[in-house]
Amino acid sequence: MQPDAPSDNAGAEASGAAPDLAIEARWVVPVEPDGVVLDDHAVVVRAGRIAAVLPIEEARARYASAPRVSLPHHILIPGLVNAHTHAAMTLMRGLADDKALMVWLRDHIWPIESRHASPDMVREGTLLAAAEMLRGGVTCANDMYFFPEAAGSAFLESGMRAALGLIAVEFPTLYASDPDDYLAKGVALHDQLREESRLSFCFAPHAPYTVSDRTFTRIGTMAEELDLPIHLHLHETADELRGSVASHGVRPIERLHALGLLSPRLIAVHAVHLTGGEIDILGRHGCSVVHCPSSNLKLASGFAPVPALLRAGVNVGFGSDGAASNNRLDLIQEARTAALLAKAIAGDPEAMPAHAALRCATLAGARALGLEALIGSIEIGKSADLCAVSLQELETRPCYDPVSQLVYAAGREHVTHAWVEGEAVLADRMLTRLDLRELEKAVLLWQNRFSN
Amino acid sequence: MQPDAPSDNAGAEASGAAPDLAIEARWVVPVEPDGVVLDDHAVVVRAGRIAAVLPIEEARARYASAPRVSLPHHILIPGLVNAHTHAAMTLMRGLADDKALMVWLRDHIWPIESRHASPDMVREGTLLAAAEMLRGGVTCANDMYFFPEAAGSAFLESGMRAALGLIAVEFPTLYASDPDDYLAKGVALHDQLREESRLSFCFAPHAPYTVSDRTFTRIGTMAEELDLPIHLHLHETADELRGSVASHGVRPIERLHALGLLSPRLIAVHAVHLTGGEIDILGRHGCSVVHCPSSNLKLASGFAPVPALLRAGVNVGFGSDGAASNNRLDLIQEARTAALLAKAIAGDPEAMPAHAALRCATLAGARALGLEALIGSIEIGKSADLCAVSLQELETRPCYDPVSQLVYAAGREHVTHAWVEGEAVLADRMLTRLDLRELEKAVLLWQNRFSN
Repeated sequence: MQPDAPSDNAGAEASGAAPDLAIEARWVVPVEPDGVVLDDHAVVVRAGRIAAVLPIEEARARYASAPRVSLPHHILIPGLVNAHTHAAMTLMRGLADDKALMVWLRDHIWPIESRHASPDMVREGTLLAAAEMLRGGVTCANDMYFFPEAAGSAFLESGMRAALGLIAVEFPTLYASDPDDYLAKGVALHDQLREESRLSFCFAPHAPYTVSDRTFTRIGTMAEELDLPIHLHLHETADELRGSVASHGVRPIERLHALGLLSPRLIAVHAVHLTGGEIDILGRHGCSVVHCPSSNLKLASGFAPVPALLRAGVNVGFGSDGAASNNRLDLIQEARTAALLAKAIAGDPEAMPAHAALRCATLAGARALGLEALIGSIEIGKSADLCAVSLQELETRPCYDPVSQLVYAAGREHVTHAWVEGEAVLADRMLTRLDLRELEKAVLLWQNRFSN
Repeated sequence: MQPDAPSDNAGAEASGAAPDLAIEARWVVPVEPDGVVLDDHAVVVRAGRIAAVLPIEEARARYASAPRVSLPHHILIPGLVNAHTHAAMTLMRGLADDKALMVWLRDHIWPIESRHASPDMVREGTLLAAAEMLRGGVTCANDMYFFPEAAGSAFLESGMRAALGLIAVEFPTLYASDPDDYLAKGVALHDQLREESRLSFCFAPHAPYTVSDRTFTRIGTMAEELDLPIHLHLHETADELRGSVASHGVRPIERLHALGLLSPRLIAVHAVHLTGGEIDILGRHGCSVVHCPSSNLKLASGFAPVPALLRAGVNVGFGSDGAASNNRLDLIQEARTAALLAKAIAGDPEAMPAHAALRCATLAGARALGLEALIGSIEIGKSADLCAVSLQELETRPCYDPVSQLVYAAGREHVTHAWVEGEAVLADRMLTRLDLRELEKAVLLWQNRFSN
């Protein structure tokens, strides 16, 4: 532990009106700078932003009138960033587990989507996902699904921050008829909701095997114009690579390179099957990878070479993927699984220590989404998107190192509070905005529809 | 789901006095027969044994006077069996994470053990472990540590079932001076506690690199005489194999084979590095393997070839290992991790489905410990060692398949009840025998001692 705060952070403060709140915690882990644990510190929030980070006693002296939240056994961290999910698919959690990928898709998931996908389904599925994620300390999700306007409505209702995927595929669905229609709807949604402070946007061309060169090229141009990231599944399975070579003569990363899409805008989800050269090229172009360890294992996609990606300087965030292939939207679980897998893959128990896993689950995810100036660390001026985890239960006793405890021993059930823009969206384990009874009724209706 | 009960189980009953209890659950998963889910069934307990398994309405008619526990949103399963742990080391949870194995042992674990290992430490560390395990639905643990009499005392106090390891190593410790002393103390403990219905025993020669041929041979003979299993770490790391070849000219499994120790008594813990021939020989000799996926990943030991072991007919149970290398004594977590890893290792999403993982976490562990006639499944005549998990929370909604939900979506925080011999040792999430405040004080004292 390094009890000293960085000189440009603790004690300093943003100027302005009286603070909204002082959150006092046993430990504050700002993530930036890396590896720091601040004992008995307070985070002072003003107008939804982090105004100061300083020892509790100093905070009480300087901000005596600020309302206080006392977390004497808790670790306060940046809100977790789930950098890849399909929120609405939470309604399909466990619907068809332990199946081969194409059986799962063709016999179970696609038939249900083709019959039931609708704005209502997406809104209610996304509400369920948001409730689960907030209870697990996830304050921002990068979503990809049909009817993103319905997902956006649900995220806004929940209070959670989200990056909405402006999805595009070549084939028609209930949502849109062709690639131009998908993109037109996506751009219209972006124009409609761009002033929402808790929403951001990514172009979301689904995957190399569902999107044409023409559509990729259009998206590349539009992403520059609108200054948005490009979020896609990439190099997930060996089949995808074989198919790309058969159809395009090259593997997907080489194809995207030729189309000019490799850049810091690119969010490559999964990135399981990579050559050394592909790892280098992702690093050289400043791409982000979203590692989804549970999903990669469950679908038998393989083991992503995360230690090598990190060595190559690739920005690696974590994602849960959808609940139909995980089956938890649980970033603490993903951080633990990623940290453990990295060690075994590298053959080195020092590969991805707990602090590194926490950084991937917060700041790296924010950076992938182009939000690193806004969220992902506890720094003055950033949005007060925060998460508190109690380390008081016997499952996290004794406690020699709170970050190690958080990543390896704690679970999402130990999350007690989550704030977005300084608003407590989870307080003492209770969601402040969502009516769980209403939600449970809606979920049961969808379960019955999907089962028939 | 297969709602029909096996004809030799549901409806049948053991004769005798009035029942103690009828546990009514939304789903009962007996594990034996495999793959069965009984909807709305009751398990009737009489004198600590399972007396009947039948539909709730029938149970109410036939056992009207039996006290009832109603679990309308729960899955009732056999108590989980943690087939390998070092319970007392829970006091070292997170003490020195993310370190190379020998640095971890030499600079952190061994110095503390050499200064602090004592009956008091083992008793209080084991109480903490038992509390954590019971809260997570683990009703039986296979323990290996010094001062097993102190561990036995703690397990008895907690109400948990345990197999105590009669440990042996060649070097002196605070517990014993030489191999003969270890074995004499172990046998004396066995003789003293053999009438305790909740305790059983294993010889526990620590590992091939800490135990001589002479000691292994003695243990082989004594295990036959006392009819006990032999519990050891085996083929855990590549270093262990290199060291064995250097010292003995052969790999450890071949050495044990030559010493006559390969038999159904053998509990080979870890079994990460195996040739095809070694997998076959473990299968042919009826050996058990205890797979510890979190520990193998965290210490970068490697990926155990569990799909191949299962194909070879090896009995595979799950273990948490000690909390110093996991850092959870959480069999639901191990089942999930094992099920996910098996798919990626096999390259097959159908490898180790949820029912198979649950079987490994219950009946296979019981079989490894020689307890398959007593525990590990919900069958008439077996001890009522049971666990109930609520699937009512939104994290486990919707619910299409309760076993899938249990393994992939639920967590130990959803465990509500645990019974050992029909006694509720966890009821509505409260431990019935242990005083958590006392325990927390003791744990804090050990934390302070170990930190200085």
